[in-house]
Amino acid sequence: MEDQIKRESGEPASLRRIRHLSLHILQPSSGDPQHLSLVPCRGIRSPSVSVAVLEEYMRGRHREIQLRVFEFFRSRPDLQTPVEISTADHRELCMRQLTALVHDAGIRPFRFVADDPSVYFAIAEAAGGVDISLGIKMGVQYSLWGGSVINLGTKKHRDKYFDGIDNLDYPGCFAMTELHHGSNVQGLQTTATFDPVTDEFIINTPNDGAIKWWIGNAAVHGKFATVFAKLILPLQGNGGDSADMGVHAFIVPIRDLNTHVVFPGIEIHDCGHKVGLNGVDNGALRFSSVRIPRENLLNRFGDVSRDGKYTSSLPTINKRFAATLGELVGGRVGLAYSSVGVLKISVTIAVRYSLLRQQFGPPKQPEVSILDYQSQQHKLMPMLASTYAFHFATLYLVDKYCEMKKSNDDEVVADVHALSAGLKAYVTSYTAKSLSICREACGGHGYAAVNRFGILRNDHDIFQTFEGDNTVLLQQVAADLLKQYKEKFMGGTLTVTWNYLRESMSSYLSQPNPVTARWEGADHLRDPKFQLDAFRYRTSRLLQSAAARLNKHSKTLGGFGAWNRCLNHLLTLAESHIESVILARFIESVQSCPDENTRGVLKLVCDLYALDRIWKDIGTYRNVDYVAPNKAKAIHKLMEYLSFQVRGVARELVDAFNLPDIVTRAPIGMSSEAYAHYTQHVGF
Amino acid sequence: MEDQIKRESGEPASLRRIRHLSLHILQPSSGDPQHLSLVPCRGIRSPSVSVAVLEEYMRGRHREIQLRVFEFFRSRPDLQTPVEISTADHRELCMRQLTALVHDAGIRPFRFVADDPSVYFAIAEAAGGVDISLGIKMGVQYSLWGGSVINLGTKKHRDKYFDGIDNLDYPGCFAMTELHHGSNVQGLQTTATFDPVTDEFIINTPNDGAIKWWIGNAAVHGKFATVFAKLILPLQGNGGDSADMGVHAFIVPIRDLNTHVVFPGIEIHDCGHKVGLNGVDNGALRFSSVRIPRENLLNRFGDVSRDGKYTSSLPTINKRFAATLGELVGGRVGLAYSSVGVLKISVTIAVRYSLLRQQFGPPKQPEVSILDYQSQQHKLMPMLASTYAFHFATLYLVDKYCEMKKSNDDEVVADVHALSAGLKAYVTSYTAKSLSICREACGGHGYAAVNRFGILRNDHDIFQTFEGDNTVLLQQVAADLLKQYKEKFMGGTLTVTWNYLRESMSSYLSQPNPVTARWEGADHLRDPKFQLDAFRYRTSRLLQSAAARLNKHSKTLGGFGAWNRCLNHLLTLAESHIESVILARFIESVQSCPDENTRGVLKLVCDLYALDRIWKDIGTYRNVDYVAPNKAKAIHKLMEYLSFQVRGVARELVDAFNLPDIVTRAPIGMSSEAYAHYTQHVGF
Repeated sequence: MEDQIKRESGEPASLRRIRHLSLHILQPSSGDPQHLSLVPCRGIRSPSVSVAVLEEYMRGRHREIQLRVFEFFRSRPDLQTPVEISTADHRELCMRQLTALVHDAGIRPFRFVADDPSVYFAIAEAAGGVDISLGIKMGVQYSLWGGSVINLGTKKHRDKYFDGIDNLDYPGCFAMTELHHGSNVQGLQTTATFDPVTDEFIINTPNDGAIKWWIGNAAVHGKFATVFAKLILPLQGNGGDSADMGVHAFIVPIRDLNTHVVFPGIEIHDCGHKVGLNGVDNGALRFSSVRIPRENLLNRFGDVSRDGKYTSSLPTINKRFAATLGELVGGRVGLAYSSVGVLKISVTIAVRYSLLRQQFGPPKQPEVSILDYQSQQHKLMPMLASTYAFHFATLYLVDKYCEMKKSNDDEVVADVHALSAGLKAYVTSYTAKSLSICREACGGHGYAAVNRFGILRNDHDIFQTFEGDNTVLLQQVAADLLKQYKEKFMGGTLTVTWNYLRESMSSYLSQPNPVTARWEGADHLRDPKFQLDAFRYRTSRLLQSAAARLNKHSKTLGGFGAWNRCLNHLLTLAESHIESVILARFIESVQSCPDENTRGVLKLVCDLYALDRIWKDIGTYRNVDYVAPNKAKAIHKLMEYLSFQVRGVARELVDAFNLPDIVTRAPIGMSSEAYAHYTQHVGF
Repeated sequence: MEDQIKRESGEPASLRRIRHLSLHILQPSSGDPQHLSLVPCRGIRSPSVSVAVLEEYMRGRHREIQLRVFEFFRSRPDLQTPVEISTADHRELCMRQLTALVHDAGIRPFRFVADDPSVYFAIAEAAGGVDISLGIKMGVQYSLWGGSVINLGTKKHRDKYFDGIDNLDYPGCFAMTELHHGSNVQGLQTTATFDPVTDEFIINTPNDGAIKWWIGNAAVHGKFATVFAKLILPLQGNGGDSADMGVHAFIVPIRDLNTHVVFPGIEIHDCGHKVGLNGVDNGALRFSSVRIPRENLLNRFGDVSRDGKYTSSLPTINKRFAATLGELVGGRVGLAYSSVGVLKISVTIAVRYSLLRQQFGPPKQPEVSILDYQSQQHKLMPMLASTYAFHFATLYLVDKYCEMKKSNDDEVVADVHALSAGLKAYVTSYTAKSLSICREACGGHGYAAVNRFGILRNDHDIFQTFEGDNTVLLQQVAADLLKQYKEKFMGGTLTVTWNYLRESMSSYLSQPNPVTARWEGADHLRDPKFQLDAFRYRTSRLLQSAAARLNKHSKTLGGFGAWNRCLNHLLTLAESHIESVILARFIESVQSCPDENTRGVLKLVCDLYALDRIWKDIGTYRNVDYVAPNKAKAIHKLMEYLSFQVRGVARELVDAFNLPDIVTRAPIGMSSEAYAHYTQHVGF
């Protein structure tokens, strides 16, 4: 390597390129010098794995359509997003990318939103791999705007709008959020007042706080918007007043289909440059008495008759509101799933570069790969393990969601709602933090925009906020756990994902076992039963104590005050539960793997995920003597050892994600000759 | 408020603006509804504080020159950096900003680099407040390029270059980092070979890995570069071979002073778009036999005579290398100091917006401010407390650094080296994480680029890497602690900052006190002695165990392998030590505050800092029974209560940072009428 580099001084650029290309067939040495090796633990074999077999086991059900997306963009360099691009150009490029995907590549995502969401999520993940803005632009068009029409509307809406949405003749917006209200959707102030004289609704923005804000597709491309507004019916209230029927959704044309001129009464401003996702054109809309026909009410859950009477199959405002928002859960499923896709890209780049990069070494010996440093393993190996854990968990979520769409079974609905909220919050927060860690772990070269971490982080950042603020979503998980705890613990049925709680709640009632609290052998610590028990014990304990504290405080502070007084506790409970669910899925995926070697490596990765999480909250375990002091130390030591072992197969583990170069893209993340790609990129 | 907003529907824009302006005189209500109040703890009064008095106590010694910087840029809107700007334009604007500051505002930073660095740091912090790129561009010119000339060179260099550097006729670069070598500076491969025939050095890039990379000012503006290269002397080695004298610094002209054409033999490429700091033009340089006169060697620590003989006042390569790098410590001091400045901006915006923003509330009552939620307090109040802690710690570091530059006292030098490495690493890592937390805590509006978090995060991100990678710097701290532990613990003198270790090491030798381990009263937990003891106990324990583990492992793994085997442990040790130093400074700053009310508030903030850190590592304390289970719970409870108390003075605490609007800039961070600023910004 050293010699090869030395020879290139003075070499003409053309020759250098040829030599670089020829080097692609060589494997770079991974470097595992003896002095860095650890004494093997008893019972832990050095792992070996076939990338092909692992990749096959990891592959999602819809890889073919993802490959079509990748191949299409590979063949169209004119559609690739450059490293630096202005907001205005990025928006136009993003629209061109989407149009080309639909018209030139013939990939039509919209039908899958309704018929087979797992295909839709696979397309969106692939599109996000090309440019996260494209994934989100697609989501705004098909999942949010399109999804609201087919899920909140009825047959007449589907007949009228499906084709236009599908073929992009009708680009649209999802106008829910207002300047003053994001999370609290029931606090929206925009009104839709029925006018029985003209058989129309009048859409109005009553004050600046009610301006629709952050509306994707609104600033430039949108022709329509699904506007969420309080439905006001004159003369239908008590004593002949008007009645507020709660938040409903309405289709509002915002720009002329032919001239693209904004319609009168509508004021649209550009929300401007954002931290990321600048391929998506977010705008702000103010409505001044904008009239739309009565039929534009998306009337699946509630309708207004010609004479201004309200009808609904659902009895209360709260139930209708829940049904309306319930239809939006697919967005969360998609975000959790795509967030894992972003994490895979980032981990792949960081691991490959950390294997290549060498810095310092023992006296008079070659420098060592930075992934051989314990500190770098500590930064990246638990992250790699988490990526695997999230991969299996979100595939499970997608399956559950598809099952729900087919069966509409109440229990599955409740399960998917809480699970999608929890996984979306947990995974996107973890990915956001990891992107920063990867940038930092790759030092100066990680700061070059072309090496992706900054762009991925900026684009992904808002995944923590949109489709439900993570802090709010975790509270939904906690609320659901408490509801189940109160209503069903005494004999009722728990939904599938919650089932484990009954068992562990009863074991919780006894004190921690002082004998097992002292077991510290690797066999025990790597036993899935120990790991799951520990996760579930923690969740059960948090749940039981949260219920008790809420009960106590609500007497003096009321329900709202008590909830707030226990808020950090409740968020910890929700995270703990989600971690338990993820671990259970991971363990099952390990055990289902048919190939023995692959199963062994996945087990290693799963153990690292489990012990890393237990160690992160070791204070809680120690505080109740669930683990004795020496066991705590043994957990820490084994975790460091597993990180070292996983480092031994780190290259294979990221190769098994099977990301094409058009997705990783970063020169320092290329699977071979990364430095040469990098110097060529800047012009050498 | 609600009524005011309702009235504005249909109001013409001009009237609305006037009304907005009139509202500036009103204080927005902070909203502290009864149901969110906690029962006061015994002995903790509700705090009250005068912003003016607190601001006066916090003010640095060089506020006047900072105000001159702010006032200059306020008066020159043409020099303000827009929210979106291309890399090419940003670089030109940044150079114009620097030139205008020097020529139009008459602020000359260079003289202070040599004569009074505390003034230089104050100017750089203020410039960074205007645009972080400007602060760094200034740092490249004056601290790195200029600093290398005056600190590594001798009088002849100062005489020749001082004025040109000072007045920007000689923009220059600091060409140390290579493609393959960042942290390992001794591994640099660029060579400077003396040619006795022509009395010149020949600068050469022997391979692509030795290309100088990330060199600020190189892509566009630089005329000179200080190039770090191995000094090769022909015929001076054993048996008449050439001798490698180690890394030295050389002044290399890179572009013609008049035509700006790159000199022959030098190839410069643009490193391109970066994650942030795009106002600074980083380039990559390759040298092919570039000749420079012998006098261009910066010869303070080593010189070459006309006949090619080497002379130095320092006996070994390692000592010369240490002396050379030692002169660069000022950059770390400046980064730690400026990083606190960035943290102040971010915390100010996040706290002000969190006070303004309301979402959800008890049934049939107004919505509450999001800073009234325990979860938001948890995200932001320990961060606000840390900002105060870092403020006092970095002011102390600047004073120590100035003392060092005056006295050159060996003990102060050692102290400043370790302290600057540790504080730079600890503070910049904390700030980087906090910028992401602030963005997330401010939800969707935090994602608007105009609201600053994204730009600050992207620009600041590399603070963790340049001037010493944080992971490497923390190892320097750990190494220094171990050196002192080994050499001086047995009777020798410890440097000032380390002094506490002797005392606590001896107390460590005894077991934790089972009586005090159970004390859980607020008076005890808020006692600075308890807090400092806990911090120092942890550090001492980590130091003692690290020394023992290193000793054990080095027998089988050698020094390098043993160090790596304990690396995570050593990093924790370094962080723990730095946290102890920060707490000690904070406690001293609280006690020195002359005003009683202000002292009370600072004490509250200091207690929150201390207990937050103890809680974060509660597993360690529990594991050795330094705190009993109930005490651990009491610490957690008090920490949450202190967060709630600090929230009560959060507005005053950020106002006391006294940041002008030109620095905070974010519409949502304005001290009044933030929403109106924001709607106006997008065009309403």
